[in-house]
Order: sequence, then structure tokens, then C-alpha cells
Amino acid sequence: MKAIVNVYLKEGVLDPQGKATRHALESMNFKGIMDVRIGKQIIIKLDTENREEAQKEVEEMCETLLANTVIEDYTIEIV
Amino acid sequence: MKAIVNVYLKEGVLDPQGKATRHALESMNFKGIMDVRIGKQIIIKLDTENREEAQKEVEEMCETLLANTVIEDYTIEIV
Repeated sequence: MKAIVNVYLKEGVLDPQGKATRHALESMNFKGIMDVRIGKQIIIKLDTENREEAQKEVEEMCETLLANTVIEDYTIEIV
Repeated sequence: MKAIVNVYLKEGVLDPQGKATRHALESMNFKGIMDVRIGKQIIIKLDTENREEAQKEVEEMCETLLANTVIEDYTIEIV
């Protein structure tokens, strides 16, 4: 099974990396950019065919290591 | 319109960040991890309602700034 984990900053948390990227794009004459936010996408290949087990294990990985749940949210997709 | 851009290392390109994450997870007793790859997810809010225009503009952003196309691939989803 493969887990696709998206980790992104919570609404309201400042995103300096996104802000810098937005400024860089604007300085390159891209118009109409309202917002840029940057997160992480983590793809984990797991040696199990049990979907629930994979979901549960990856959730625990997110809570303990992959996401800083004080400032970040995450989504998990098992494929 | 909102563009969700996923930027990830091409197959075969070493991913030290993913490797370090894998080792960290294993040292925390997570079992059965076959591979971990880490990419970026960039969410861009655009001031246009034209889907093709948004797609075209974001493609150009990827080619010129957001992705290093020598070692990275990207996908664009307009929502």
C-alpha cells in the first residue's frame, strides 16, 4: 500500500516560504496571484495490504513525527 | 481558481530527506516501511475563473521557478 500524506500549515499561521515564493513570482511578472502556501507531500510505501492497518500506522507517524500538530494539519490518502 | 502543485523528485534521484525520515520512523519502531519520498505541495490562489488560463500560467510558474526540472517532476491540479 502507498500512503500520500499532505502536511500543511494551519489557517492563520504565517507562511514565510509561501510569501517569498509569491514575491518571487510577482517579480517575474506573474499577475493575479492572491495567495501562495507551501506544504510537504510525503509518500510512504508500506509492506501491508491491509488498508485500515496502513491508515492507522500512518496516522500515528503523523502525530509523532511527520507533522507538528501545533501549527500543521495533515491529510492521509491510502492508495 | 486554486492550483494544487505537487513537486517531487524524479525516479532514481536520491532523496536524503526521505531517507532520514525513514530511518527516524524505523528508530521509533514503525515496521514495514519500504520507502519514503518527500516532495513539496504548493497551493496557489489565482484571481481568474478561466481554467485553461490558470493551468497555463501555473505551468509556466513551475517551469521557471517552482520546480527544478532537471531533477524534479510536477503535477498541476486546478480546483
